[in-house]
Amino acid sequence: MLADVAAEAGVSTTTASYILNGRAAQMRIAPETDQRVRAAAARLGYRPNRSARSLRTRRTATIGLVSDQIAGEQYGSSMLTGASLAARELDHVVVMGESGGDPELERLLLEEMRERDVDGVVYATRTARTIHLPDALRGVRSVLLNCEARDERYAAVLPDDEGGGRAAAATLVAAGVSDVWVVGEDPTPEATAGPRRMAGIRAGLAQAGLDLAGVVACDWSVTEGFAATSRWLARGVRAEGLVCMNDRVAMGVYQALAEAGLRVPDDVSVVSFDGSAIAGWLRPVLTSVQLPFTELGALAVRRLLDPDDHGGTDSVPMAVRHGGSVRTARGGTA
Amino acid sequence: MLADVAAEAGVSTTTASYILNGRAAQMRIAPETDQRVRAAAARLGYRPNRSARSLRTRRTATIGLVSDQIAGEQYGSSMLTGASLAARELDHVVVMGESGGDPELERLLLEEMRERDVDGVVYATRTARTIHLPDALRGVRSVLLNCEARDERYAAVLPDDEGGGRAAAATLVAAGVSDVWVVGEDPTPEATAGPRRMAGIRAGLAQAGLDLAGVVACDWSVTEGFAATSRWLARGVRAEGLVCMNDRVAMGVYQALAEAGLRVPDDVSVVSFDGSAIAGWLRPVLTSVQLPFTELGALAVRRLLDPDDHGGTDSVPMAVRHGGSVRTARGGTA
Repeated sequence: MLADVAAEAGVSTTTASYILNGRAAQMRIAPETDQRVRAAAARLGYRPNRSARSLRTRRTATIGLVSDQIAGEQYGSSMLTGASLAARELDHVVVMGESGGDPELERLLLEEMRERDVDGVVYATRTARTIHLPDALRGVRSVLLNCEARDERYAAVLPDDEGGGRAAAATLVAAGVSDVWVVGEDPTPEATAGPRRMAGIRAGLAQAGLDLAGVVACDWSVTEGFAATSRWLARGVRAEGLVCMNDRVAMGVYQALAEAGLRVPDDVSVVSFDGSAIAGWLRPVLTSVQLPFTELGALAVRRLLDPDDHGGTDSVPMAVRHGGSVRTARGGTA
Repeated sequence: MLADVAAEAGVSTTTASYILNGRAAQMRIAPETDQRVRAAAARLGYRPNRSARSLRTRRTATIGLVSDQIAGEQYGSSMLTGASLAARELDHVVVMGESGGDPELERLLLEEMRERDVDGVVYATRTARTIHLPDALRGVRSVLLNCEARDERYAAVLPDDEGGGRAAAATLVAAGVSDVWVVGEDPTPEATAGPRRMAGIRAGLAQAGLDLAGVVACDWSVTEGFAATSRWLARGVRAEGLVCMNDRVAMGVYQALAEAGLRVPDDVSVVSFDGSAIAGWLRPVLTSVQLPFTELGALAVRRLLDPDDHGGTDSVPMAVRHGGSVRTARGGTA
């Protein structure tokens, strides 16, 4: 069987599988490894039988995905969908476990994945953050998804929140907006999205010779976004442009602006982050910097199953998804 | 080991586990079965060792959950959380798989669960519907979650959408609203929520001697709810009360009413279904009939692990979660 070929050639069964399934090039497997495995297969008279996987005599090739929260947001689901699709392309299925942030349950789930001999584990967090690598992850082939290991180099996939921040600022600058406020602030100490988006916003404004006019601090929720923005408006402050830390905050900002009789984008241009379903629900449609969750999930799986993965962090670019919430330089909307 | 005791007593390892872990009463296991298992354990000198489960020498007790979509809505996540918590109470962890509605992937996932010897499978659908039982589910201990098998009796857990419809109508009737329109209609043929909610609404109104004034047909989305309601208002039609088929539709209805200068609830009372996060985001907070997803997920798991489960469908009641979108009989809001 495959395991014997892998042992004979001194490679992992995953590597042997890629080679004997004609994926050596795609997976960037060294030619000499490819030759060694094929030679071993020939010596042992092994014939790859793809359909064998679907027989009860052989296990389905599986990877595990463990997350603090499997869902809760539309884009969280996109992350799983991206992972599932990428896994299927590589003849794997994904089995998932949700820890709810409970370390003991997380340990049980990771242990369960190991006992099931998954080919690897994607360890995901719902919000982008730095983490202490769980002990149960040691010795398991794994990739971190939407999080990074603190104080050590480890295979990780994260959105480029700083680049996203620069894109958000550039969108307002291009519209001729010069006084920009940020609504929302980093909700938790370990979360990385807030500070990175903020750094990108400041950098993007600085490129245009502008400073951030101010920050309206609030948690990243609709009701907090509404309450904080209402208090801010009641102080008589006004701004041409608001960058909201996520789409929920932006929904609250829309409500507060409407109650104050201010129109988006004629009176105030609004840009946000996430590109979640909420952005498409708002009127006018919210211009939002898209979290590339499908790509994040897919990349984490491809790296997990890539025997030659480079380790370290990959940052996936965040693109602006344009709605109608930013005025154009000519006063129309972009 | 436990399996020997179970074999000796002629029961499943799950049943034996409950009894030896002191859960016989909770799981409604017959006293004679309890005695038989304890006698077998004594004969074989078996001592239950709960912590043994966490040793590499013994597998974590696991159940599988396979769904067309694991998430995509806040309440879909609640269903998983309810399942996970209930499983933990019974010393199991849940491993999940998402099929994306692809029958082949679904088959692979169910096969994977079987190969992993899960103690049972919860088969879930994101929207309440009738299904043809997948062949891969035959011969696996399983419970259907948020769906029902067509043309056969099978263990299933569903929300009581008809009761929810009656509750929605009763809420408006109690507020003295007499002309009630429904916004939204059954989006897909197999979906059961639409027709059952509609039947409940008609029944609830009939109880007060009222007929449904009319239906504004639209898909269950914010943008469709907005567009259809705007067209309806443009025809000059007015209603004292609107029942929206879900919270996304209601969000669109709020937008359309606002653009027409109509206030909620002073001019129009609005009731919806789902009790999703959206209900709490709207201003005024939307009165919505709560989908009991946490309870649904928990009940499915408890029934799956209950050796004496009755089979057949359980309907979980839907309670009204009051916001401020329904006027009171006195003209205030409830």
